[in-house]
Amino acid sequence: MNLDDPVIAVIGAGAVGGYYGARLAQHGHRVHLLMRSDAAAVRHSGLRIDSRDGNFSLSPSQIHVHDDPRSLPQADLLLIALKTTANDRLGELAGPAVKDDSAILTLQNGLGNEQRLAELFGEQRVLGGMAFVCLNRVAPGHIVHSDHGKIRLGEYLGGPSQRARQIAALFRGSSVPCDVVENLAYGRWEKLVWNIPFNGLGALLDLTTDRLVGNPDGLALVTRLMQEAIDTAKALHLQLPDNLIQKEIDYTRTMGGYRTSTQIDRQKNRPLEVEAIWGEPLRTAQRNGIATPALETLYLMLKMLPNCGQYR
Amino acid sequence: MNLDDPVIAVIGAGAVGGYYGARLAQHGHRVHLLMRSDAAAVRHSGLRIDSRDGNFSLSPSQIHVHDDPRSLPQADLLLIALKTTANDRLGELAGPAVKDDSAILTLQNGLGNEQRLAELFGEQRVLGGMAFVCLNRVAPGHIVHSDHGKIRLGEYLGGPSQRARQIAALFRGSSVPCDVVENLAYGRWEKLVWNIPFNGLGALLDLTTDRLVGNPDGLALVTRLMQEAIDTAKALHLQLPDNLIQKEIDYTRTMGGYRTSTQIDRQKNRPLEVEAIWGEPLRTAQRNGIATPALETLYLMLKMLPNCGQYR
Repeated sequence: MNLDDPVIAVIGAGAVGGYYGARLAQHGHRVHLLMRSDAAAVRHSGLRIDSRDGNFSLSPSQIHVHDDPRSLPQADLLLIALKTTANDRLGELAGPAVKDDSAILTLQNGLGNEQRLAELFGEQRVLGGMAFVCLNRVAPGHIVHSDHGKIRLGEYLGGPSQRARQIAALFRGSSVPCDVVENLAYGRWEKLVWNIPFNGLGALLDLTTDRLVGNPDGLALVTRLMQEAIDTAKALHLQLPDNLIQKEIDYTRTMGGYRTSTQIDRQKNRPLEVEAIWGEPLRTAQRNGIATPALETLYLMLKMLPNCGQYR
Repeated sequence: MNLDDPVIAVIGAGAVGGYYGARLAQHGHRVHLLMRSDAAAVRHSGLRIDSRDGNFSLSPSQIHVHDDPRSLPQADLLLIALKTTANDRLGELAGPAVKDDSAILTLQNGLGNEQRLAELFGEQRVLGGMAFVCLNRVAPGHIVHSDHGKIRLGEYLGGPSQRARQIAALFRGSSVPCDVVENLAYGRWEKLVWNIPFNGLGALLDLTTDRLVGNPDGLALVTRLMQEAIDTAKALHLQLPDNLIQKEIDYTRTMGGYRTSTQIDRQKNRPLEVEAIWGEPLRTAQRNGIATPALETLYLMLKMLPNCGQYR
């Protein structure tokens, strides 16, 4: 594995994959983007990133675009940024770029993605990362980066590794704040404590975050769902801080009227990431005997939404 | 009180009040309708009922229309058919028609309406009824009666009375199937077992009844909510039958793609009857120490809907 001058393959270059791939290419790295609908436009005109940290563009010569995974090179680093609703195609889409010593970093939402990659490609290859970033693909090859941007990553198995630190340095050298977490599961659950209520209620009720924390009923729902996630994490011996609920609510109040990715998915009639964000955490709770009735109710309701794609 | 040739006042003549008032007037009774937006149209053209039991019309001379409650006569029988979201105006709207021996029958949805009337007008005057009927007001003075029609009524306090039997006979003599229940609270909870899941999920998810019973996730949600209602009724010493959940689901399957009144209210951007159908049952459960987490989640979500009117 060569992480000094790596070959990087981004599997699923939507807003998240496109943005981080563009940052790495902007800083001279060899980046291959696997993309579907935007491939022709990006081959022709490159990528345009309107970033709150300064706009930039990449010409077609600065990036490699693939619409067929079989044309991908073997990669030192794979960034998995597919929507989790396409996880059944992970083998087919990522497989051709995987070599013996590839590092595979999933930046996908929710729970279960590292497990899926480990089953397909071997657990020793897998890392996970949480992307704290507000991105929107507004047109083919045109991404708006409106806020934040940090990645927190870690090994799927074990604590901080040399490899994890090298990947974090690669990002930091490419204008992406990045650090290595002690315990990836802890980080995943910490993020779920926010995603479960805000992505779920935001999509179900079509409300931005400010509307969810702006009245006692919304706060009661958010608090209940956060507490159930914290209870479940605790059963996994992940002791989240006592003041996390208040901290997350205070943080959310600073965000204004933010639309989560799931609210946007619903508005755009795209499949929702129901299993990764709600289904897997619920099944984890059930396996550990933790009562999570609000999470279960929310999960079943999200699956029932006409545009969720489960029951058409 | 004269229930042989009664003066009847319908307080809130929308679809439900308009239909039952029209049936009584069709059979020669003296019916006074208190209505708001439709008053001018009905004064001019009368009422038109398209009923699956045979269409009929009433000329303006066959009914008395009021848009000001102060012009109502003192009534032997008041039918309360206001939406429960207007219950804060019950005193003002019904008061002028109440005399010493008036019988006041509420046909409103949900829980708490008899209590409210009893506080305003004295518990001895109050009866309650459940209307099992599919009605839609399609234009001013034009109501479509698409299915069912039965009323089940009873005294607010005590068992079947002479007065309750007389009112039931009045309806039966006016082409309205009607019977007297032994225990009004039992009847209310039996109806809530259906209304809580189907009106609630139908409005929240914008799904007709067939979509809610057509897949395992919908059935899981419906069953959970029904069981919580049954548990709460049991704490009130109302023992609903063991097979009620299966019976209600089987019955719902015969209805096809039915839109509940609450789903229609949401589609038309009208206030939802959140307190009567979910809030009062939830508070009853809480007072009796019954855990109803799915009901609580649903109630809070319905209150959060942008068009519910709680948080604009």
